[in-house]
Amino acid sequence: MNKLFSVPLKGGNVTDVFNVDSIDELCAYLESVRADKLYVFDTNTAQILPSLPARSIVLPSGEKEKRWASIDRILSRALSLGMARDSIFVAIGGGVILDMTAFAASVYMRGSRCILVPTTLLSAVDATLGGKTGIDYGDAKNIVGTFYPAESVLIAPDTLSTLSDREFRCGLGEVIKHAFLSEDRRLYQFLSDNKDRILKRDKGVVSEMIKLSLEVKIHYITLDPEEKKGIRSCLNLGHTFGHALEAMKGYGISHGEGVAWGMARAFEAGAAIGITPISYRDECIALIKSYGFDTDYKICASEMSRFMDAIGKDKKKKGGAVRFVLMEENGKPCLLPLENDTVKYAVSND
Amino acid sequence: MNKLFSVPLKGGNVTDVFNVDSIDELCAYLESVRADKLYVFDTNTAQILPSLPARSIVLPSGEKEKRWASIDRILSRALSLGMARDSIFVAIGGGVILDMTAFAASVYMRGSRCILVPTTLLSAVDATLGGKTGIDYGDAKNIVGTFYPAESVLIAPDTLSTLSDREFRCGLGEVIKHAFLSEDRRLYQFLSDNKDRILKRDKGVVSEMIKLSLEVKIHYITLDPEEKKGIRSCLNLGHTFGHALEAMKGYGISHGEGVAWGMARAFEAGAAIGITPISYRDECIALIKSYGFDTDYKICASEMSRFMDAIGKDKKKKGGAVRFVLMEENGKPCLLPLENDTVKYAVSND
Repeated sequence: MNKLFSVPLKGGNVTDVFNVDSIDELCAYLESVRADKLYVFDTNTAQILPSLPARSIVLPSGEKEKRWASIDRILSRALSLGMARDSIFVAIGGGVILDMTAFAASVYMRGSRCILVPTTLLSAVDATLGGKTGIDYGDAKNIVGTFYPAESVLIAPDTLSTLSDREFRCGLGEVIKHAFLSEDRRLYQFLSDNKDRILKRDKGVVSEMIKLSLEVKIHYITLDPEEKKGIRSCLNLGHTFGHALEAMKGYGISHGEGVAWGMARAFEAGAAIGITPISYRDECIALIKSYGFDTDYKICASEMSRFMDAIGKDKKKKGGAVRFVLMEENGKPCLLPLENDTVKYAVSND
Repeated sequence: MNKLFSVPLKGGNVTDVFNVDSIDELCAYLESVRADKLYVFDTNTAQILPSLPARSIVLPSGEKEKRWASIDRILSRALSLGMARDSIFVAIGGGVILDMTAFAASVYMRGSRCILVPTTLLSAVDATLGGKTGIDYGDAKNIVGTFYPAESVLIAPDTLSTLSDREFRCGLGEVIKHAFLSEDRRLYQFLSDNKDRILKRDKGVVSEMIKLSLEVKIHYITLDPEEKKGIRSCLNLGHTFGHALEAMKGYGISHGEGVAWGMARAFEAGAAIGITPISYRDECIALIKSYGFDTDYKICASEMSRFMDAIGKDKKKKGGAVRFVLMEENGKPCLLPLENDTVKYAVSND
C-alpha cells in the first residue's frame, strides 16, 4: 500500500489517495482504522471482501437507484446503529455507490467521515477525487448533492479484474477525456502508445494510467474546488451532450459511453464555430473511436426536442444559458454558450 | 433598511444581516435582487407579503413537516422552473422553513443562493446565522443537513407582530440562552431590566434585544464555523435535554420551551457535579422562570427509559459519549459527558 497523492481541498481538508496491492491489504487497512464504520455495497460489490462486515448495507445496483430512497436507507441504518459525527461511511463500489455514500456522509449530522473504495475504472478516475456527491432527480443527473471530499481513497486494481470489457472501456471514456484536458500530453501519448496493453488490462500499465489520469483531475480541482471559477467546469468536457443522451435513453447507455459520444459532439461543435482546429478534432475523435466507442450515433429528428430539453437542464447554466466545454487545443478548454442550431448540427449533422 | 452585521463564514463566504423597517421595504429589496427566485412559505407566512409571488411554494406548517418530503417538493419545483446554480431560494417563515429552504438551496446543484427572512423571534435569533440547515429524521432533530450560510438575512420586526404570546416567548428561550453565554452580561442585564417592555414587544426594545442576541451568536460561530472545536457546540446549552424532551413529546412542545427547560436541567446537572455555583444556578433558573417558562417539569419513572434513549441520539456524541453543555459562570460554558445517574437526577430530582 503506497500513497499516490495528498490532495488539498476546501476548508483545509485533504484527501489521501492510496494504491492498495491486494484485497487482503485493503481489509487489513480498513480494520486498522479505529472508528464506528458502516460499509455500503451494491449487489455487484457485496462479494468483493472475503466476508460481508456486520455493519453493512447492500443496495440494488444501477444508475436508476441513484435516488433519495437509497440515501434514506443509508441514513436510517446509520441512525439505528447510533453512528456519531466521527463515525465513518465506507463506500465499496462504482460511481453510483461512491457518490451516494459520500452524499449520505456529507449530510449525516451535517458531515461525518467518508472513505471511498472504487471498484470500477470509471469510478477510480471520476468519482473519487474532488468531493462531488449526489443523486439524480427526474431526468437530471447529479442535480442534487454536495461538495464533500472523502478523507481517503483506496484504489485496489485487483477489484477491477471482475469488470466486463464494456464496463472497463466505459472508464476509459473519462481517461481519454483527461488526456485531452492535459497540457503536457503525457497521458494522450500513453493512451496512443499502449492501447493493446491497456485493453488487456496489464496491471502495471493500468495503475500507471490511473495515476496519470488522476494527476490531470487534481490539477483542475485544486485550482477551483467548488466549481466557481469556470476552471473545474472544464472537467465536464463531453458531459453536457453526454448527460443529455444518457437522460434521453433512460440511462440505457453507460456514463463513459455518454461522455465519449459527448466529447465527439463537443469537437464537432467547436470545429463548426471555428474554435477547434479541424485536424485536432479528427485526431481526437479517432483516438476515442480506437478504444471502441460509438462516436457516430446521430440524434434523429423525432428525438430532437426531447434531447434539447435535456440539454436545458444542465447544471452549467449561468444567467440562463447553458455553457459547453469546447477545446481550442490539447489542454486548452473553454466554456461557451452555443446557438441551438450549432447544438443540433453537432448531434445530427443536419 | 440598515446593515447590522457582515458575518465572515466558511470558505470566504459572508452573511449580511439587515434590519428592514417595513414589509414594503422588504418587498422592494427582494424585487431589486436580479436573479431567478423561488419563494418558500408555510401556510402561516404565505400572507406576509401583499401578494404571493408567482414563483413560490407554500408548505404545510409545523415541525412534523421538517422531512425530506418537503425538501423534495422544493427541489422538484426548482427543477421544473429550470432554476440554475445562480438562482436564489428565498425562505420566508420560522425556523422550520428557514432550515429546510437553506438545506434545499445547499444541495440544489450542489449549492445555489439563499436569502432568509425570519418571521418569528425564535428563527431571527436562532435559525438565520451560522448556516446550520437540516431536517428531522425519526425522533432525531436536525440530524440530517449541511453547513451552508445564507448570503443575506433580512430581519423585519414588523413580521413579528402577528406572533401569539406563546410563540414570541418561545423565541425568548434562545435569547435568554445567549444572555447566559455572553461574557459581557450586557444582554443578561438588558433582559433583567426590560422584561415588561420586551413582553409588550416594544419595537425599539425588541430590535435592540435581537441585535444583542445575534452578537453573542456571531462570537461563537465565527470562532468555530463547522462545530469542530467544541466552541460552537456551546450554543447548544439546554439543547441536549431540550431536544430529548421535544422528541419524547412528539414535538408537542415548542423548541424555545424545550431549550428553556433544558437549560434549567443543565444548571441542575452542573450544580450536582460541582461545576455550576449554586447561587448562579438559582439566579439563572429564576430569570428563565420570570419570562413564563416551565422550569419545573419532571420526567417520571415510566418515561425515563424513552427519555434516556432520546438523549443517546444526540449529535454532540464523540467517541460514543454524549457531551452536555454546562456552565461554570456567565459566558463560561464547557462540554462534558455526564453519568446516567446525574442526567436522571437533573430531569427528575430522584
